[in-house]
Amino acid sequence: MSDLKNDRFIRALLREPVDSTPVWVMRQAGRYLPEYRATREKAGSFMDLCKNPELACEVTLQPLDRFDLDAAILFSDILTIPDAMGLGLYFTEGEGPKFERPIKTASDIEKLGVPDPLTELKYVIDAVSVIKSELDGRVPLIGFSGSPWTLATYMVEGGSTKTFSKIKAMMYDEPALLHKLLEKIAQSVTSYLNAQIQAGAQAVMIFDTWGGTLSTRDYTDFSLQYMENILSGLQREINGTRIPVIMFTKGGSQWLEKIASSGCDAVGLDWTIDIGEARKRVGSQVALQGNMDPCVLYASPDRIRQEVGSILESFGDGTGHVFNLGHGIHPEINPEHMQAMIQAVHELSPAFHKK
Amino acid sequence: MSDLKNDRFIRALLREPVDSTPVWVMRQAGRYLPEYRATREKAGSFMDLCKNPELACEVTLQPLDRFDLDAAILFSDILTIPDAMGLGLYFTEGEGPKFERPIKTASDIEKLGVPDPLTELKYVIDAVSVIKSELDGRVPLIGFSGSPWTLATYMVEGGSTKTFSKIKAMMYDEPALLHKLLEKIAQSVTSYLNAQIQAGAQAVMIFDTWGGTLSTRDYTDFSLQYMENILSGLQREINGTRIPVIMFTKGGSQWLEKIASSGCDAVGLDWTIDIGEARKRVGSQVALQGNMDPCVLYASPDRIRQEVGSILESFGDGTGHVFNLGHGIHPEINPEHMQAMIQAVHELSPAFHKK
Repeated sequence: MSDLKNDRFIRALLREPVDSTPVWVMRQAGRYLPEYRATREKAGSFMDLCKNPELACEVTLQPLDRFDLDAAILFSDILTIPDAMGLGLYFTEGEGPKFERPIKTASDIEKLGVPDPLTELKYVIDAVSVIKSELDGRVPLIGFSGSPWTLATYMVEGGSTKTFSKIKAMMYDEPALLHKLLEKIAQSVTSYLNAQIQAGAQAVMIFDTWGGTLSTRDYTDFSLQYMENILSGLQREINGTRIPVIMFTKGGSQWLEKIASSGCDAVGLDWTIDIGEARKRVGSQVALQGNMDPCVLYASPDRIRQEVGSILESFGDGTGHVFNLGHGIHPEINPEHMQAMIQAVHELSPAFHKK
Repeated sequence: MSDLKNDRFIRALLREPVDSTPVWVMRQAGRYLPEYRATREKAGSFMDLCKNPELACEVTLQPLDRFDLDAAILFSDILTIPDAMGLGLYFTEGEGPKFERPIKTASDIEKLGVPDPLTELKYVIDAVSVIKSELDGRVPLIGFSGSPWTLATYMVEGGSTKTFSKIKAMMYDEPALLHKLLEKIAQSVTSYLNAQIQAGAQAVMIFDTWGGTLSTRDYTDFSLQYMENILSGLQREINGTRIPVIMFTKGGSQWLEKIASSGCDAVGLDWTIDIGEARKRVGSQVALQGNMDPCVLYASPDRIRQEVGSILESFGDGTGHVFNLGHGIHPEINPEHMQAMIQAVHELSPAFHKK
């Protein structure tokens, strides 16, 4: 990691000593920033923005120009893979993502190919290269993907869902079929993330947004298992440099030990668990990322600072901690409140890194 | 409980031996039943139905006439209390409940009274009496209320919410204000549930639908604490007969030990936790109610039966188990699938009650 001017984030993921706790925020390039909304306007649709490597680079860098962040994350969407598989992704105002051709039958699954990231997802890999070059070693670049279970929910439901009725009917009635689908998605995610790593991503994160809707047994069989398959297929080192992997299951606190044993380098925590308790449960097996309630950013800068202090305090000695929210930043947050959080992490955390 | 022809449910809540595992289902009187939809049509609006004791009784009894259930639950809504407090409850198609006058300021909270259940919520208490009399001891009648935290979310947000932005801004910035609100709601819930008990409810359940959106610290301070206050103010015995209390926090599995130590008789589980593991964690301190994923009812009757067996098996010796879904039944479920579940509980569970 010699070419990084700021390697705090990578060192924290590897549980190496740092001078202060690194901080970045899920959806840090997003709608709460006026400059993002301006670029989005210019791009056309949301997918036009994702598919334009220069504009994707522009929005990726916007939060870094405004805030003292320790990592950049590729601007993209988790549904690029199913789109490349031919499901026809589109976005509707207020209703979120939809697929023109959702997965309904065994033959739909049979027909699915594993997309070649260098051709069918070229726009993402190009964005990684452009961002990496523009970053010029300022901070590390994080690549990412949705988890197989999370992607499968959208692919089978045809979009967002509250009830998970179709995917769960398939899970309970036709588990073999769902396993076949998850296997194909896991292969696709593996080659997609490896291509991001090849193009310059210095860490990758797997987002399992909907794993928490499962029972313990089904989480293990239908979500965690496939994330573990991905982990074992990922290129974990490039030119002698470790590429850390962060795994994040929203609502997954009760399965923390299982997730920490998966082979990942770090576990992302939502805000429901006390980070000190989480640390006690997993020991030094993995780094922990999180875990402030995104709603704390609705509160005053003073209160935000207090909450940052309380999370740092709960974690204790700061080695192996990456500060983040427990979920993506809400679109209506005042950017000054984001600023208050980041400043508090930089000011309060050095006290937790003295040996 | 001598006047009950079927007291399995009460005995199970008190961890006394029974011949088979009792079963009922959250929202068992609801939209998945054509006879419910017919009565609802006849009543006018949803609140017209809630406010008519005879029709509320009719829909309460409908699932009992169709299925071999071991308990009836009062048909009502959790938002009756804030409505009685003067917030002006109404329902919009597709958007759910709304309040005309949500809580915004300290003075809004100051002005709130604790409703007298015998006058301002008379329609609910009358419904309890009518249902109790119509049931004639067939099965026990469950009364219920929302938890203070859950009710406060609707009262401050003005309806349903995805982000909990207003209530959490209040929680983080003006905790004393929110505590004042929760205190008033807790007093209201206590007298409301006591009136239901006086009118004939033989068990009561507190629904904390939104406790799982909180951090461990905030759950303890802003939700659990107020449920404990209610517990200590409830009439727990009537004419020498224990009135068991069930506490249910959706998404609360990681706080199971805390909930079990609250003084309740039984804990409701959502479907994310393995019920056998839950039992190991709480021992025989409380009975457990749950915990099949409501989405299992989208699957085939055979698969439903298999899942019922797997939950009974995981619980082990069946003393202290009330079978239920882990959340309310979905409106589009085929009633025959509900039937398959109930039949499976009755057929498979006796094997777990032999000493």
